[in-house]
Amino acid sequence: MAYVPTHKRHTHLPPGPAYAPPDLDPTRPMSEGGSPRPAKRRREHDGPGPGSGAGARASAPRNGAHPGAVTMDTPIVPSIFGVTARNEFTEHVGNFIMANCRGRRDVEIEIKLGTLHAANGPHRVRLPSLTELILPADYPRGQFASTLTKHNHKWLNEVLNQQVQASVGGEYPLRYKRVRQVDEFHRTRAGKVRVSREMEPGGKAGKVVAVVRKNRLGDLNVVSPNQAFDWRISCNVEEPVDIDVDQLGEAESSRQKDRLCYEHQLCQVDLTAVTPRDRAAQPGPMSFELEVEVRDAPALIAEGEKDAAGQPNRFEEMLQSILDTVRILVKNADPQ
Amino acid sequence: MAYVPTHKRHTHLPPGPAYAPPDLDPTRPMSEGGSPRPAKRRREHDGPGPGSGAGARASAPRNGAHPGAVTMDTPIVPSIFGVTARNEFTEHVGNFIMANCRGRRDVEIEIKLGTLHAANGPHRVRLPSLTELILPADYPRGQFASTLTKHNHKWLNEVLNQQVQASVGGEYPLRYKRVRQVDEFHRTRAGKVRVSREMEPGGKAGKVVAVVRKNRLGDLNVVSPNQAFDWRISCNVEEPVDIDVDQLGEAESSRQKDRLCYEHQLCQVDLTAVTPRDRAAQPGPMSFELEVEVRDAPALIAEGEKDAAGQPNRFEEMLQSILDTVRILVKNADPQ
Repeated sequence: MAYVPTHKRHTHLPPGPAYAPPDLDPTRPMSEGGSPRPAKRRREHDGPGPGSGAGARASAPRNGAHPGAVTMDTPIVPSIFGVTARNEFTEHVGNFIMANCRGRRDVEIEIKLGTLHAANGPHRVRLPSLTELILPADYPRGQFASTLTKHNHKWLNEVLNQQVQASVGGEYPLRYKRVRQVDEFHRTRAGKVRVSREMEPGGKAGKVVAVVRKNRLGDLNVVSPNQAFDWRISCNVEEPVDIDVDQLGEAESSRQKDRLCYEHQLCQVDLTAVTPRDRAAQPGPMSFELEVEVRDAPALIAEGEKDAAGQPNRFEEMLQSILDTVRILVKNADPQ
Repeated sequence: MAYVPTHKRHTHLPPGPAYAPPDLDPTRPMSEGGSPRPAKRRREHDGPGPGSGAGARASAPRNGAHPGAVTMDTPIVPSIFGVTARNEFTEHVGNFIMANCRGRRDVEIEIKLGTLHAANGPHRVRLPSLTELILPADYPRGQFASTLTKHNHKWLNEVLNQQVQASVGGEYPLRYKRVRQVDEFHRTRAGKVRVSREMEPGGKAGKVVAVVRKNRLGDLNVVSPNQAFDWRISCNVEEPVDIDVDQLGEAESSRQKDRLCYEHQLCQVDLTAVTPRDRAAQPGPMSFELEVEVRDAPALIAEGEKDAAGQPNRFEEMLQSILDTVRILVKNADPQ
């Protein structure tokens, strides 16, 4: 099995998210330490602040040093304007989501890890950038391969299991559940329909859990030149289909999904081993995927609506949390 | 004169930094409002946190809604790992500064606005990215033109003057001083030497204020496809030269600088009108520049040293503030 039990750790495990300081003790449980309560910083688009000057009355620079002297206690003013700059990456993602999802029902927002191929071959897109970027929609590119290696999959499994352990007892623990399903695809007059069933022991398809028609609304491709993986943000409609599944006949194709769902506050990380099956139910080669799905897309879109209307909202903060989840996963996907 | 007096505002002035919400009242003084005290968020490289679960004990989700339900009061966990992702852009800038400046004296770190030209002509570099990026050093490109138009210059002058007013009375007010200097360049056996003198009425060169030899250590080019300007981060050594200026003879070239220095906590924004002079002291066409200079480069590098040693430090936070200053200026440079 590709899944490694939570408590079975290898000696070569990463001690946690990348970029931990060198003095990190991997045996120290992650639930110790100072208050991690995320605090709100003023941002550029929160509107005019009290000016940078009023920003830091609580603590004066020490020793009569020049005003730029910074100690560990000095509040650092976020800019000469007293506010942080709006993050244009997050802003683009927000605009993309709102442009695609606004006013729609049954929306699904997901981010997949993978590699973005060049137009002329199976190698990765290479662009003159040292930092992550959002690719324009008209850039001539090849396919996005949303597959991990078995090795990456296992590694991410360990990282996630470790975080499950570390977050036990908190208010937003990372919880996981295992889902085994068989998806069957049928071509009908209403389009391509996916019938998902519980997988019974032996890989047999059991009770129907969902019948949906999935339509892609839009993709946003993120090239991450420093990392082993790029990522793709997708908006889809997953529309329930009211159909008698017994009338559907034989499926065109099917796949078995063995999935660990890691559920958190805003998103769910699905780490899936997929085994395709042909009509004779013969298994093809297993593939591995990781996707981050927004748990409550309508709630996110509602915050985006407030943002568009100039009302107080959490849209950007929620997006930032979801994107940072993806970034930390990408950084930790490759043990090298 | 290019400079507009602080209190002389035009009716078409921007109400403040871009992206203010639509309900912004430009007549409301910016020194009112809630506390803008910048608060520290846990970041990925701050080391292992208490896990995402323990992050938000102070406030439970309301109404028994699912754990993803977010109200205006709900703390949003920065990621499923309970920490934010390290910003790779800021990290690159930090690495660049440390690689160039570590162990050196008389270091100057500055960021200039301008346009990065393509290798094959005077037009701007265009890359397939919707977001800002750091260009690799080996990318074939043309020159970086660190000039603004008179129009941009005037606009930024207004934006900065407005912030001077808005921050009066706070602990970190934005203060400005006007500096008029004449720079003379001499080629000597010790290399190219710049002699800076106070500019006396009528444009005459007066008392010597600095004699330096400037050596470029390195440049980092930032392409900002959504904005009117790109930017360049430069590390230089500005080494004082012990030389008898009266022995230098006639200068190779000279320029008059009429500069407004806006001083803040970590950086100083210099908005400069430059008039070149030929040997016969005839003025050439005036050009306009904006640069953001780190006020205390040794202090910044000292924080970088702590970061490299795994000690608590403010390096990234200081860099973030400086970079956000540049970003907000870039966004506000172009009135269109």
